[in-house]
Amino acid sequence: MKKSRLFTPGPTMVPEEVLLEMARPMEHHRTAFYRNMYKQVHELLQYLFQTKSLCMLFTGSGTAAMEGAIVGCCPPGHKALVIRNGKFSERWTKVCQAFSIDHTSLDIEWGHGAKVSDIQKAMDADPKIDTVVVVHSETSTTALSDVEGIARLTRERGALLLVDGITAVGALPVKMDDWGVDVYVTGSQKAMMLPPGLGVAAVGDRAWERIDSGKMPTLYNDLKAYRKSHETFDAPYTPALTLVRGALKALQIVKERGLEDVWAETAMLARGTRAAAEALGMKVYPADPVDSVTAMVVPDGVDEGALRKTMREKYGFQIAGGQGELKGRIIRFSHMGYVDAFDTIGVIAALEMALAAQGYKVTIGAGVQAAQRVFVEAMK
Amino acid sequence: MKKSRLFTPGPTMVPEEVLLEMARPMEHHRTAFYRNMYKQVHELLQYLFQTKSLCMLFTGSGTAAMEGAIVGCCPPGHKALVIRNGKFSERWTKVCQAFSIDHTSLDIEWGHGAKVSDIQKAMDADPKIDTVVVVHSETSTTALSDVEGIARLTRERGALLLVDGITAVGALPVKMDDWGVDVYVTGSQKAMMLPPGLGVAAVGDRAWERIDSGKMPTLYNDLKAYRKSHETFDAPYTPALTLVRGALKALQIVKERGLEDVWAETAMLARGTRAAAEALGMKVYPADPVDSVTAMVVPDGVDEGALRKTMREKYGFQIAGGQGELKGRIIRFSHMGYVDAFDTIGVIAALEMALAAQGYKVTIGAGVQAAQRVFVEAMK
Repeated sequence: MKKSRLFTPGPTMVPEEVLLEMARPMEHHRTAFYRNMYKQVHELLQYLFQTKSLCMLFTGSGTAAMEGAIVGCCPPGHKALVIRNGKFSERWTKVCQAFSIDHTSLDIEWGHGAKVSDIQKAMDADPKIDTVVVVHSETSTTALSDVEGIARLTRERGALLLVDGITAVGALPVKMDDWGVDVYVTGSQKAMMLPPGLGVAAVGDRAWERIDSGKMPTLYNDLKAYRKSHETFDAPYTPALTLVRGALKALQIVKERGLEDVWAETAMLARGTRAAAEALGMKVYPADPVDSVTAMVVPDGVDEGALRKTMREKYGFQIAGGQGELKGRIIRFSHMGYVDAFDTIGVIAALEMALAAQGYKVTIGAGVQAAQRVFVEAMK
Repeated sequence: MKKSRLFTPGPTMVPEEVLLEMARPMEHHRTAFYRNMYKQVHELLQYLFQTKSLCMLFTGSGTAAMEGAIVGCCPPGHKALVIRNGKFSERWTKVCQAFSIDHTSLDIEWGHGAKVSDIQKAMDADPKIDTVVVVHSETSTTALSDVEGIARLTRERGALLLVDGITAVGALPVKMDDWGVDVYVTGSQKAMMLPPGLGVAAVGDRAWERIDSGKMPTLYNDLKAYRKSHETFDAPYTPALTLVRGALKALQIVKERGLEDVWAETAMLARGTRAAAEALGMKVYPADPVDSVTAMVVPDGVDEGALRKTMREKYGFQIAGGQGELKGRIIRFSHMGYVDAFDTIGVIAALEMALAAQGYKVTIGAGVQAAQRVFVEAMK
C-alpha cells in the first residue's frame, strides 16, 4: 500500500471532513442558505485576517483577488512601489504593466524578505509613491518580509499597503488591523485547507477611500461590485458554492483550535524541518526563512528531478521544486494547514531515503531525530 | 423524508459520482497528473462545443470567461454590437463600459431572441460594427437566439461573433465550427453538471487574430496567457483542480451518452414542461422559448414568493423566480444536465400541489399527465 501525501506549498492537503462537506448535494446561491453560510464564512475570515474590514470572496485564484486589489487601489494619479523578491512578487509588477499603472519595482535579492529600510529608501527617493505592494511570504523563495514594520512606515507616510498574504494568512501571525495593513489577500489552497478556486481580499477603510476615488478598467475583479453584493451577503457573479461550503467547515476547524495554536504548530513544523536539514548537512535556502514553507538547497551531486521523482513515485510524498531561476536548485516543503508533526517526520524520512538512493552521504534517521527533538520539546 | 431537488437554471444537480470524484484527496497542478487530466478535459470540451478551437478553462464564473472574450476581441479601433434581451446580455454592455470599449447596444423586447434581421439592420446602420455579442439562451427570460443564422451573417460581413452560451452549450445543439462562431463561452454549473467555479471560452482562429492585433488592460482573464499555458496543458494561475477533476468525469458521461442524445432529452423535458403549463392554464413566458430552461408566467392571484416557498419548504423542489423586471412575474425550471423525465414529472406534481394550496383552480394531475404524454412518445 502506498499512501499519497501532499507537501507542496499549495495546493495543500484538505481534511477528509471538508472534502465530504463539499461532496454534499448541490444548492443554489441566491438563497437564504447561501447568505447564511457566507455570513458565517465572512465572520471566520475576519478572525483569520484579524480584522474588522470587509473580506471579499472571489471566484478565482489568489491572483484574481490581488489583481482586484492593485487595480482598485491604483487609479491614475497614484504611484505604486512593487517589492520584487521572487516569482510571485514579479506577477504584481505584471498587473501594473497590464493596467498601465504608474509604478516602480524594487528588486531585492532572492531569498531575502522586504525590510523597512529598503522601502523607506525607495519612498524617500520618489515622493510620488503612495502605494506599496509586498509579498508577506514569498512562496517561490520561502522568504519572510517584515509586514508589521512596513505597515508602520506606510501609515506614517500616509501610503497604502497591499499585502500578498497567499502563503501567510492562516499560517503565520497576521494582524491586519493591529498592524495597519490596508489590503491583505489570500487563496483557498494554502492554510485555508481547501482546494484552489477561491481568492480572498480583506479591504480596509483607507483602501476603500482610494478605490472610491477613481475609476479603472475592471468588472469581474471589481472590488466595488463585491462590496455592493456583500451588503446582502450575496455575490456579484455565481460564487464557487462548494468551495464556500468547504470554507465554512475548514475555518470552523481553525477557529475551534485557535489561530495562535495554528501559528505555533506551523512554526514548530518549520523549526523541525530546518533542524532536519542541518542534521542532514543541507542548507536552508533563504536568508530570511518563513515558517509556512521551507526551502532546502539541493546538495551538489544530487539530481533534484530524480530526488522528487523517488519521493513521489516510490514513497508517495509530493514536495515542490524551485521556480524560475531556482528550478533544479531547491526543494520546498509546506507546513500549512492539514499537516502535523508525524506527517512531517514522514516526509523527512522519505527525503533521507531518496537522498541515500542517489548516493548522498546521509545517516538514515539523523534528520528525523533532529526534527523529533524539536517536536518533543514543543509538544510537551 | 424530504428529498431535495434543484431545478434552478444553474447551479443544477451534480451526479453523485462527480461529487465523489471531486472529494478525492487533493493533488498538485504542476504535475503530469494535472496535464494529463486537462488534456482529456480539453478534448471533451472540443466535443462539447463541436470545435477544433482551443477551449480555455478559467478559474472563475462564466462572467470571467465572457469578460476575457469581449476585452480580448475589442481592442481600440473595433466596435461591438451588444444584443440586449435580458439580464445577462446587459452584463456584456457593462463589460464594454468598464473597459471603455466602443460599442452600441441593441435592445430587443424581453422574451424574444435575437434574429438575423435585427442584427443586419443594426450593422447596416453602423458600418463600424465588426464584433457582435449575443446570448444564445438568455437565462433570465428563457429566450432563444438564432446563433446559426447570426453566425452566417457575421461571417458574410467579416465581423466576429462572440456567443454567451452559458445555458446553451451541452444543452442545445451548438456547432461552433459548422456555424462559424468565433468565441463560445459557458460555465460549469449548467449543462456541464458541475458546481460553479469554472468558465470556458472556446476561441477560434479569427478571434485569436483579433486578440493578437491589440493590447487591452487585462491579466487574470487574459486569453493570451491562457493560450500560452495551454501549449503545455498548464494553467497560467492555480486552476480549480477539484472542479477540473469533476469535469473529466462529467464530460465522460456526456461523451458516452452522445451529445445528440443529451440535446434530445433536454428538448423533450422542455416540451413536456411546456405541455404541462398549457394543461394547467399557465402561459409560457417567452415568445421564442429555449429548451434548456422554461419560464411560466405566474397566474393572477398567485403569489410567486409563496409558491416557490411551498415548493421548496414543503416539497423540496427549488425552482427559480424572475430577475430584474420579471421578479415576481415568472417561475423558471431547468432542463439541463443531471435531470430526467421522472424528476420533471416530480416538479410538475409539486407545482400543481403548490398552486392548489394558493387556491388556484387546478386539476391535480393534469400537468403531469400532459408531460407524461410527451415523454411516453419520446421515450418509445
